[in-house]
Amino acid sequence: MKKFTSVSDVENLQEIIKKALQIKENPLSETEKGKGKTIGLVFLNSSLRTRLSSQIAAQNLGLNVLTLNAAQEAWNLEFADGAVMNGDTVEHIKDAIEVLNQYCDIIAVRCFAGMKSKEDDVNESILSQFEQHAKVPVVSLESATRHPLQSLADCITITENWKKEHKPKVVLTWAPHIKPIAQAVGNSFAEWMQEMDVEFVITNPEGYDLDPAFTKDTKVIHNQDEALKDADFIYVKNWSSFDDYAAMPEVKENWMLTNEKLENTNQAKVMHCLPVRRNVELSDEVMDGENSIIYQQAKNRIFSAQAVFSEILNNIK
Amino acid sequence: MKKFTSVSDVENLQEIIKKALQIKENPLSETEKGKGKTIGLVFLNSSLRTRLSSQIAAQNLGLNVLTLNAAQEAWNLEFADGAVMNGDTVEHIKDAIEVLNQYCDIIAVRCFAGMKSKEDDVNESILSQFEQHAKVPVVSLESATRHPLQSLADCITITENWKKEHKPKVVLTWAPHIKPIAQAVGNSFAEWMQEMDVEFVITNPEGYDLDPAFTKDTKVIHNQDEALKDADFIYVKNWSSFDDYAAMPEVKENWMLTNEKLENTNQAKVMHCLPVRRNVELSDEVMDGENSIIYQQAKNRIFSAQAVFSEILNNIK
Amino acid sequence: MKKFTSVSDVENLQEIIKKALQIKENPLSETEKGKGKTIGLVFLNSSLRTRLSSQIAAQNLGLNVLTLNAAQEAWNLEFADGAVMNGDTVEHIKDAIEVLNQYCDIIAVRCFAGMKSKEDDVNESILSQFEQHAKVPVVSLESATRHPLQSLADCITITENWKKEHKPKVVLTWAPHIKPIAQAVGNSFAEWMQEMDVEFVITNPEGYDLDPAFTKDTKVIHNQDEALKDADFIYVKNWSSFDDYAAMPEVKENWMLTNEKLENTNQAKVMHCLPVRRNVELSDEVMDGENSIIYQQAKNRIFSAQAVFSEILNNIK
Repeated sequence: MKKFTSVSDVENLQEIIKKALQIKENPLSETEKGKGKTIGLVFLNSSLRTRLSSQIAAQNLGLNVLTLNAAQEAWNLEFADGAVMNGDTVEHIKDAIEVLNQYCDIIAVRCFAGMKSKEDDVNESILSQFEQHAKVPVVSLESATRHPLQSLADCITITENWKKEHKPKVVLTWAPHIKPIAQAVGNSFAEWMQEMDVEFVITNPEGYDLDPAFTKDTKVIHNQDEALKDADFIYVKNWSSFDDYAAMPEVKENWMLTNEKLENTNQAKVMHCLPVRRNVELSDEVMDGENSIIYQQAKNRIFSAQAVFSEILNNIK
Repeated sequence: MKKFTSVSDVENLQEIIKKALQIKENPLSETEKGKGKTIGLVFLNSSLRTRLSSQIAAQNLGLNVLTLNAAQEAWNLEFADGAVMNGDTVEHIKDAIEVLNQYCDIIAVRCFAGMKSKEDDVNESILSQFEQHAKVPVVSLESATRHPLQSLADCITITENWKKEHKPKVVLTWAPHIKPIAQAVGNSFAEWMQEMDVEFVITNPEGYDLDPAFTKDTKVIHNQDEALKDADFIYVKNWSSFDDYAAMPEVKENWMLTNEKLENTNQAKVMHCLPVRRNVELSDEVMDGENSIIYQQAKNRIFSAQAVFSEILNNIK
Repeated sequence: MKKFTSVSDVENLQEIIKKALQIKENPLSETEKGKGKTIGLVFLNSSLRTRLSSQIAAQNLGLNVLTLNAAQEAWNLEFADGAVMNGDTVEHIKDAIEVLNQYCDIIAVRCFAGMKSKEDDVNESILSQFEQHAKVPVVSLESATRHPLQSLADCITITENWKKEHKPKVVLTWAPHIKPIAQAVGNSFAEWMQEMDVEFVITNPEGYDLDPAFTKDTKVIHNQDEALKDADFIYVKNWSSFDDYAAMPEVKENWMLTNEKLENTNQAKVMHCLPVRRNVELSDEVMDGENSIIYQQAKNRIFSAQAVFSEILNNIK
């Protein structure tokens, strides 16, 4: 693996899920693999799970870890090519990346969507600079349009929780929120589910369809009850409008996932990437109930990251 | 030891002091003990000594260390059970704790008193959530009502500085401050001194008596001169009113510890947990004088933490 | 080496450059040297290169690393001797240093010029407290008037890039900026160049002469074109007025380094300590052009720091 920013960087999805599950059995099986090598974890945004799970994964592989909270600890970054830097920005992102090239064997970066310019976000205005200027492998810790380490952890979690022979029905359902949230987790989950051996359905209110570049031919149903029927897995996540970018069109029905809605399903397991707004996106009873595999998902973030870092280390001398 | 949030978690105080002093002699005697295990150090508040000494202690034991400045690096936390999270809070503390359960073998947390609601603080509204939801051992890095790693370091320091046969007289004296400070260090020192073989006295102005749940039958004297007479150790610390919670009733006398006040004592050693407001809580001459063992106390924070982490590791498979 | 805050702490400059270049060849040649020892990296200001390169250098030597973002993570510091601390400051710098003495084998600190009081900055009001109160070796990660780890990296870079027998002509040129910047990098580069076997010239507009305590008998030319003629190395850096402290007297000519200005030189290599304001201090074409050795300079920060830490470890039992 030469980089990891989307599912297309994975050669064989079943193989990497298998590898991650082996790592879960024995996390310290490759403690010498990263010796003398350095991973830079660059955070342009907040992080709890990604921050900690990436550190654990890297430490399990013997990597040196450099964590940089870029905004607070370093310099205000300029992102525009050709900018005359006579304003508030102190360092150009491409210079910061070139320096990281000198210091790191792997650069991992979190750079959320700005939610202001659709064009900037769709074009991954920040991650694309890392992909362009990095001379070492780049790992996305969530970018404007994707969250691939989360999606791999999701695939691992579904695999662990499905032992039947037929395909499970996996439903990605939109959930309410109070402010405009990026589509990254939804997009990414859609992309990865298309590669999994599952029956995949998306449900969201009118006006909230995800970018068709990610949903492709996935069935999108605007009636949540209909979509959840017989579901084996329900992935709960909010996102704002893609068409009317970052808008929040009015939704009359209550899309919060509740135990009542679960009755209609095939005792569906409930998933969420966290952090979650309790009693807004889903109810306390669901979050704390037996159907939730949300913390297991969080744990699998370690093995998702470790499998990816390990694969990348295979390609570093 | 299964957790460490107060003196009642210590089975044998003299034993753990002895262990800490052995660690001080040879801090690298157990470098393999924590191998492959992870401690999460979660800071909801500022920290210098606790932050650094805990990291050193953990590294000396071979533990992986994850440090999380929760407020700046992760998500705005919700603390209310059953909250409809449609406001500023992004992640519920119990979800953050459940995730830490997945990632850490020990969770250490600093969560100061809010100083707004007496009930919340007395009930340890934050630490209690860790005690309730953590599935791994919890270590307090100072909570609303206690600072046990500090108190253990204080016991170590008194032990190192007292070679006589009779009991030393230890006086905890209130000191002036400019804003309302929590009672945690005072409470905790009282609790621990009651377990030590010392003559223990508290002195503070009228209106500043600590919570009797902590002081119990300790003698409280409202005249500082009288209390300091013949003292062998003086512990200087400010706290705000407990009765009229977080208030600062007027104090007419000058309670700042000075060299003049030391004359009345048995060449008392002066202690303080730091940070200290010089020339407010105590004078420069005391801080920089020969009677101060304050930096030694700070150093013993390492061995206090290391003894506790080591004891806890004994109970982790 | 007992401390490292200026070039005068280096016994033999050629020897330490040679050592740094050996480390660059084999960065992991001394991984046991720092075992069981701790370096504290204390940041009172922003940092990217210094932060990461110091961590890598320390890890390469097997040192434990404690990184402290003092302002955000610890307590608001008081710097005035004898202060009655009844205001916003919570901990006196000398107490923080005494605690670091207890916890660290080496204390490294970044403390920029305040740019308000010439006297405070010239007297190194913060670094001097570390030099006075530290009981372990102090390393400057840039102080009010000097940036010696940068200067050593600069010497390493010049050495790597000059294979001819005659002395290279090295020109330190002032560059435009939008706000008052400290003289530290300029001062420091001047000091170190005076120890190197080079022909050294400084060029800056009238009113921008550096402190003569640093420039000594170095030729200062106020005409940039004249100074750059036949240059082999050009070091680009802004600084504000020293005489009229922190002022920015009007400059009519355009001092931004461009390709056109390079034509006049001996195919000069271009250097900058970073971060750089593109198209203000120097043009994109220079930054991204073949003459730039700026990223190489950044990389050499690792070996500069590692050589210094290694030399200091020779003096620690």
